[in-house]
Amino acid sequence: MAGNSFGKLFNITTFGESHGEAIGGVIDGCLPGIILDLEAIQNEMNRRKPGQSSIVTQRKEPDTVQFLSGVFEGKTTGTPIGFSIKNANQKSKDYSHLKDAYRPSHADYVYDKKYGHRDYRGGGRSSARETACRVVAGAIAKQMLGSIQINAFTSSVGDIFIDKPYQDLDFSKIESNDVRCPDVAIAEKMITRIKEIRKEGDTIGGTITCVLKNVPVGLGEPAFDKLHAELGKAMLSINAVKGFEYGSGFCGAKMKGSEHNDIFNPDGSTKTNLSGGIQGGISNGMDIYFRVAFKPVATIMQPQESINAEGENVTIQGKGRHDPCVVPRAVPIVEAMAALVLADYFLLNKMYK
Amino acid sequence: MAGNSFGKLFNITTFGESHGEAIGGVIDGCLPGIILDLEAIQNEMNRRKPGQSSIVTQRKEPDTVQFLSGVFEGKTTGTPIGFSIKNANQKSKDYSHLKDAYRPSHADYVYDKKYGHRDYRGGGRSSARETACRVVAGAIAKQMLGSIQINAFTSSVGDIFIDKPYQDLDFSKIESNDVRCPDVAIAEKMITRIKEIRKEGDTIGGTITCVLKNVPVGLGEPAFDKLHAELGKAMLSINAVKGFEYGSGFCGAKMKGSEHNDIFNPDGSTKTNLSGGIQGGISNGMDIYFRVAFKPVATIMQPQESINAEGENVTIQGKGRHDPCVVPRAVPIVEAMAALVLADYFLLNKMYK
Amino acid sequence: MAGNSFGKLFNITTFGESHGEAIGGVIDGCLPGIILDLEAIQNEMNRRKPGQSSIVTQRKEPDTVQFLSGVFEGKTTGTPIGFSIKNANQKSKDYSHLKDAYRPSHADYVYDKKYGHRDYRGGGRSSARETACRVVAGAIAKQMLGSIQINAFTSSVGDIFIDKPYQDLDFSKIESNDVRCPDVAIAEKMITRIKEIRKEGDTIGGTITCVLKNVPVGLGEPAFDKLHAELGKAMLSINAVKGFEYGSGFCGAKMKGSEHNDIFNPDGSTKTNLSGGIQGGISNGMDIYFRVAFKPVATIMQPQESINAEGENVTIQGKGRHDPCVVPRAVPIVEAMAALVLADYFLLNKMYK
Amino acid sequence: MAGNSFGKLFNITTFGESHGEAIGGVIDGCLPGIILDLEAIQNEMNRRKPGQSSIVTQRKEPDTVQFLSGVFEGKTTGTPIGFSIKNANQKSKDYSHLKDAYRPSHADYVYDKKYGHRDYRGGGRSSARETACRVVAGAIAKQMLGSIQINAFTSSVGDIFIDKPYQDLDFSKIESNDVRCPDVAIAEKMITRIKEIRKEGDTIGGTITCVLKNVPVGLGEPAFDKLHAELGKAMLSINAVKGFEYGSGFCGAKMKGSEHNDIFNPDGSTKTNLSGGIQGGISNGMDIYFRVAFKPVATIMQPQESINAEGENVTIQGKGRHDPCVVPRAVPIVEAMAALVLADYFLLNKMYK
Repeated sequence: MAGNSFGKLFNITTFGESHGEAIGGVIDGCLPGIILDLEAIQNEMNRRKPGQSSIVTQRKEPDTVQFLSGVFEGKTTGTPIGFSIKNANQKSKDYSHLKDAYRPSHADYVYDKKYGHRDYRGGGRSSARETACRVVAGAIAKQMLGSIQINAFTSSVGDIFIDKPYQDLDFSKIESNDVRCPDVAIAEKMITRIKEIRKEGDTIGGTITCVLKNVPVGLGEPAFDKLHAELGKAMLSINAVKGFEYGSGFCGAKMKGSEHNDIFNPDGSTKTNLSGGIQGGISNGMDIYFRVAFKPVATIMQPQESINAEGENVTIQGKGRHDPCVVPRAVPIVEAMAALVLADYFLLNKMYK
Repeated sequence: MAGNSFGKLFNITTFGESHGEAIGGVIDGCLPGIILDLEAIQNEMNRRKPGQSSIVTQRKEPDTVQFLSGVFEGKTTGTPIGFSIKNANQKSKDYSHLKDAYRPSHADYVYDKKYGHRDYRGGGRSSARETACRVVAGAIAKQMLGSIQINAFTSSVGDIFIDKPYQDLDFSKIESNDVRCPDVAIAEKMITRIKEIRKEGDTIGGTITCVLKNVPVGLGEPAFDKLHAELGKAMLSINAVKGFEYGSGFCGAKMKGSEHNDIFNPDGSTKTNLSGGIQGGISNGMDIYFRVAFKPVATIMQPQESINAEGENVTIQGKGRHDPCVVPRAVPIVEAMAALVLADYFLLNKMYK
Repeated sequence: MAGNSFGKLFNITTFGESHGEAIGGVIDGCLPGIILDLEAIQNEMNRRKPGQSSIVTQRKEPDTVQFLSGVFEGKTTGTPIGFSIKNANQKSKDYSHLKDAYRPSHADYVYDKKYGHRDYRGGGRSSARETACRVVAGAIAKQMLGSIQINAFTSSVGDIFIDKPYQDLDFSKIESNDVRCPDVAIAEKMITRIKEIRKEGDTIGGTITCVLKNVPVGLGEPAFDKLHAELGKAMLSINAVKGFEYGSGFCGAKMKGSEHNDIFNPDGSTKTNLSGGIQGGISNGMDIYFRVAFKPVATIMQPQESINAEGENVTIQGKGRHDPCVVPRAVPIVEAMAALVLADYFLLNKMYK
Repeated sequence: MAGNSFGKLFNITTFGESHGEAIGGVIDGCLPGIILDLEAIQNEMNRRKPGQSSIVTQRKEPDTVQFLSGVFEGKTTGTPIGFSIKNANQKSKDYSHLKDAYRPSHADYVYDKKYGHRDYRGGGRSSARETACRVVAGAIAKQMLGSIQINAFTSSVGDIFIDKPYQDLDFSKIESNDVRCPDVAIAEKMITRIKEIRKEGDTIGGTITCVLKNVPVGLGEPAFDKLHAELGKAMLSINAVKGFEYGSGFCGAKMKGSEHNDIFNPDGSTKTNLSGGIQGGISNGMDIYFRVAFKPVATIMQPQESINAEGENVTIQGKGRHDPCVVPRAVPIVEAMAALVLADYFLLNKMYK
């Protein structure tokens, strides 16, 4: 219970179901005096919203954010920022076929078992629609963080992946294509793959890599609230995420210490960065980078056997407009969650001054 | 700051440096009336402690836990359980060579930058010695959890890995060998590999897999405090961890929805379990399983170039007795952190009754 | 920062300024399956709202609550309940005279010093308008608490006070008069006093007494989160509150142990109840009762000397419609905060079952 | 559960029963680099400890604090400070007579009902012995707070009270007498009164006033975490406390706005200070002052009727050495809790810089 808040000092609490009246949230702890760039916020929303390109769901949601408090004369006041986002057409469809049927690899079954009473319209609270609120908060956090740069991008779709280190990529190309992959040739392949998958009525997984630049030394609070531990929790809390690794990650588990150790330069930077910008849970000033694994979307356009609340067999088939691959739209969500984590530690770190 | 606590209702706060007077902690929120099996607790400590076998550090620490409160007439009272573990011989060595030198891929540099004033004796607070306290708390949590089974084991060392699904493994063999691998033939290879690495004065990484059985349906608190998100944070907070995946994990990112979806049986269980026992952040009654990546230990017995606090070049070489591979001793730590997460959600879940 | 949430398991986060677009909040942790009585919620709002009688401010606010999530088919779902309350006519007035002037005994000065950037329209975030959100959450908490009864009433206005123990009062009379005093004769005197004060252009303080009946034994979490400590914090967080006492309170400080001790009946109840229903921070099943002191409203209709942001002398005089005495409208706020505290401990207490 | 921690950023978790092995705690979040004055800490302990004068309990406890971590080369390191205090002679007495008997106005009954299993030796966890740990943490917080001055003193014993405003008192006289009252003539009367009460085998209540000087403007986090709300919770969490008021307190509830408002000086200070140094939950730079009511100690040396766990009548009479009046020893506890609250907000406030 009460699991809908994230962050200690820079805190976001979200509410809302996919087909309720509205979704929204409260951002508590934003520094006062930040001149909010509302267009930049809406731009992040547009990167996440459905219908933005041919390879995402064709559902239409304007996803316009209405701010209700905490901003005055264009600047944050230090008081909580309440906001809401209307759900378009939330009453237009008949969801009675989902009332008792449990969709495979969705949260229907566990919500019924846990809460007893469930909003069965289109996923309800378990829908990824909730992440729109995170994007709002993350966009504000980014503006508070000043010169810290946060760049996420699609690093793989199925078995198509970027085979270069992130240092060799041109991040300005990320938004140049619908799949948000900075390697334009690979991007083409990914898009083709997603279109094939959609034709099959199927879905496919992928990974997102995120790079944080200009993070000051000292962010992170061991022993438990290590910076990468909180980043990991943040990413794993995003719908469909199955894994998180930072720096050398799972590859690091195959390496020897003599290969893996990052040797210092005289200025405290390191010649290599297998550590991923974090030592002992604290940022060391080098780039922080991590990778997040997303499973294929559970709703497919093929018939699947399933059960209903009585344990009877039913056949389910996705209707309407769903994403064949979640990663292009998840890129701004990963960035938003990274911004939220950084904002919290950024404020915590001020105590040491 | 104040990052040394874990858990909301079943809460552990730890203290202590590797070479201070003692380490210890406070467990707050354990249910009253639990008959504590002190031998079982000490047994977990022995699984973690140095000097237990030929492939771990030969340092000697008895690691005897002294309970100071919260237990009366053999049972927990519901009041906080304070405990301490003395550090053996903590004053016997000269650590002045580490006072200013920053060991590569250790936390020395960031602690100095963050805190200014640092206990430089053997890692201080950043030492994995802190995890001994987690093992105490985890052992108590396990006893509170009753029939839930928690089994972790070494699933890879370097590039040697178990090539079977965990269902085909005999967990009763985990403790039969020094590396804690249930596949005895693979275990032999791992041990041989670790001995080679030690001879080279080097270290090597590995992975641990953990399986949680008999977890009731309903544990987990979306949207942010999803069960796997908290498990991920818990694991990532362990020293040397670089990655976490559950269920299909990073492999799931390569799959199609039609392959990945877990089809229900009439009783609500699923025919496959790529979800890893968690849907939408809530346990579904199936086995929960996850994998944790550990980097190679940073302290190697080979000379390495480094710098001191003044940015001058120094040469560093590990002295004394260090682990060539951290995973055998980390197995009980992974189990302990899993137990702490489950204990917290187990208590939270009681609210719904 | 991030001080706009209350409660650990039953949690409320509020947002909103008195003259912004809207106020509202998120209730996180309400049990699922509660059949919400929306009329009862609105009724609590009406008890708090301005313009309800001749002795409160004649400002008009409909204070209609709009629920945005967490309720489906008339019942709570266990997911966060988002709600908002529009601010009527929030742009109709000119507040430029308050932009730089600091009203005596208001929060204008400290908000400017703390946050730098302040919404100066009518108190902004520091306005008691925020408490409307608490009343919504408290009304829902009450419904979750079942048979626990919460009754607050005006026990004094200025130097007019009820001179009977609460046991001799008829709580059904509380709502029979505008000042919410169950002693009807005293109520008349209070109302007359408030009207006199209003004519003088002045304001007056008062106290509210609150009685909690049918609270089960066992609520409270020592050593720090004692039930009365959290009740105290809850009450002190209400605007204009200067003091809190429970049971014998400040009078108890004059007594002897032989007079003060509550002797047990064989069933565990006590013959007297100077303890106020709480022993060692834990409810003992007897009535819980406490008293809350409110200062006189700071806005008076008389000219007062003050300063502006430059430290220059200015004369300030309250304009428009303000409360001559805050206590009649604060009665439902005290009840709401008591309900929030009880809801949190009620859920916490389920862990022991 | 998990109610044994206090503070968000400067956090203390305590453990220990009155007659267990030891009591102690962990202070998490103290700034690094504070040169700890260990003598000053022990001096605070001595002010609280039993046996210090003829008007307190004659029990003997050396109350020597042993620091186990977080301090290196005389300075704090920013890592958690673990400490323990041995309980002297904890096994020397027979407490079987208390095993089933419930002492009137003690926590015996509610602990049995809540936890089922209880350490019945001398109050166990509900004993005020726990407050020794708070004094340790408070003494460290004081050192971190620099120029902020915290002075508490006994302002009344029974019906004997100081009849001057605190501004007319000489705080340097507080420690000049056993009752810790700065008005030496009143102190004499208080001491005489306590001695009479002790002879009667009875106990008596009293109040403590606390004054905080040099608190910077801006401490406090509305809407819920107002500075005085947290001070109130802190004080109410101390054993035997029944009430809290700050500034004008309960007297303010009798006043008119025109009398109560504090008019500004040009520099932002106020001519009067009925607000008590806090406006809207935020410190305004004026002295903060508050008053805390303590009930008479429940253990009296007279026979009292009571019940046992079976509901049978038993007669109880205090044995051994108990305090006839708790306030002289509670003075350093009040100061310690004030220091803990200030430390937390002091760190929080750094975020705004």
